[in-house]
Amino acid sequence: MTNPTAAMLVIGDEILSGRTRDSNMNHLAGELTGRGIRLAEARMVPDVHERIVLAVNALRGAYDHVFTSGGIGPTHDDITADAVAAAFGVAISVRDDARAILEAHYQRTGLELNAARLRMARIPDGATLIDNPVSAAPGFTLGNVHVMAGVPAIFQAMVAGVLPVLTSGAPLLSQMIDVNRGEGEIAGPLGELAQRFPDLSFGSYPYIRNGAHGTQLVVRGTDAGQLDAAMVALSKLVGGQG
Amino acid sequence: MTNPTAAMLVIGDEILSGRTRDSNMNHLAGELTGRGIRLAEARMVPDVHERIVLAVNALRGAYDHVFTSGGIGPTHDDITADAVAAAFGVAISVRDDARAILEAHYQRTGLELNAARLRMARIPDGATLIDNPVSAAPGFTLGNVHVMAGVPAIFQAMVAGVLPVLTSGAPLLSQMIDVNRGEGEIAGPLGELAQRFPDLSFGSYPYIRNGAHGTQLVVRGTDAGQLDAAMVALSKLVGGQG
Repeated sequence: MTNPTAAMLVIGDEILSGRTRDSNMNHLAGELTGRGIRLAEARMVPDVHERIVLAVNALRGAYDHVFTSGGIGPTHDDITADAVAAAFGVAISVRDDARAILEAHYQRTGLELNAARLRMARIPDGATLIDNPVSAAPGFTLGNVHVMAGVPAIFQAMVAGVLPVLTSGAPLLSQMIDVNRGEGEIAGPLGELAQRFPDLSFGSYPYIRNGAHGTQLVVRGTDAGQLDAAMVALSKLVGGQG
Repeated sequence: MTNPTAAMLVIGDEILSGRTRDSNMNHLAGELTGRGIRLAEARMVPDVHERIVLAVNALRGAYDHVFTSGGIGPTHDDITADAVAAAFGVAISVRDDARAILEAHYQRTGLELNAARLRMARIPDGATLIDNPVSAAPGFTLGNVHVMAGVPAIFQAMVAGVLPVLTSGAPLLSQMIDVNRGEGEIAGPLGELAQRFPDLSFGSYPYIRNGAHGTQLVVRGTDAGQLDAAMVALSKLVGGQG
């Protein structure tokens, strides 16, 4: 596949301790798939400077885009912006345009723009801001790395702002058949079908519902004609065993 | 912290396409935290042999334990067992004890142990089996890598089987205060508190509920006395600003 590739980096102790169940990765995955950008890897790391730096550098070198969530708030454990700056080897400081956004927001809400909140205006040199329509404090894009908030409502708003400016690929299409038998029944012929259509990917996802085994068969690809042909063959295959 | 460390590797195209929202990582995180094993990283990779091999080798070298989910079923895209064998440089073939488990299961259920299902008895040399009380097909432990199914009910049953035999650490304790104001209000004094208790970790998690900003403050550590002292100080800090 020649679609652009992406990676997601989820940052935060609360994810790895099990306290918080991440939902941002699944949201981003769906949005990218719809735009023909293939999410090729996701990583979750704790609030530790070196771990964020290493992950950012590993991922930005391997994929067209990297999306991060978490760690850009006002508290001592919000260290993502500094870690991304370090990963790129650029300086970071409070930037006037980001500060102006925060000043306007806190004037409007009547809250104080204290030293902690001003940290949210720290932006690495060379970055462009990502708009935060929910709570003002911006994210930023540096090179191919898009740094966004962890709070799901803000993350989603930032994704909606960033994705339209990225180069997208041929839409990643998928079709699904639900079969009320275990995947072991259909695994053999399904594997043969996958060999006949090397440009498509065939997934088989078993489930147990009300005590009965079933399987969802998903075919993915970018060529609608091939996808249709594969689904016709798949229906025959499944029907023939019914 | 001297607690044992672990990593999770979630394997499957369906996770990265956004079709399926992973729940296994969050389940494992909670179970590990309760046993004093620190989940230090998670990765999600597609059903691609080289990608699984690289991730397994990176993680098993860096952490005390690695837990994988997904890719051990009967279909062509179930390639985890072969990839883990390749990562360790050991052979893999249908093993008698695993085959016996499948034979007994399929005799009991009246289904055929066909060639596809027999693939689930492929076990790398030197591995020990992990019991699957739900659908028989076993997982396995090879070195410090625990290979388990992706279906959540089976994954959870396998985790329950594996964890009791691992060396656990001092329990990772946590306490929480919910504050009905934005984290920017308390970020300064919270940071000072974090410096006073360097063995504890202080997390600050903002949320928006019914349009109002709030923050959950979480303190984590293994020393119950220190944790209590920090919570007293934190309550004063938050109360003093109320």
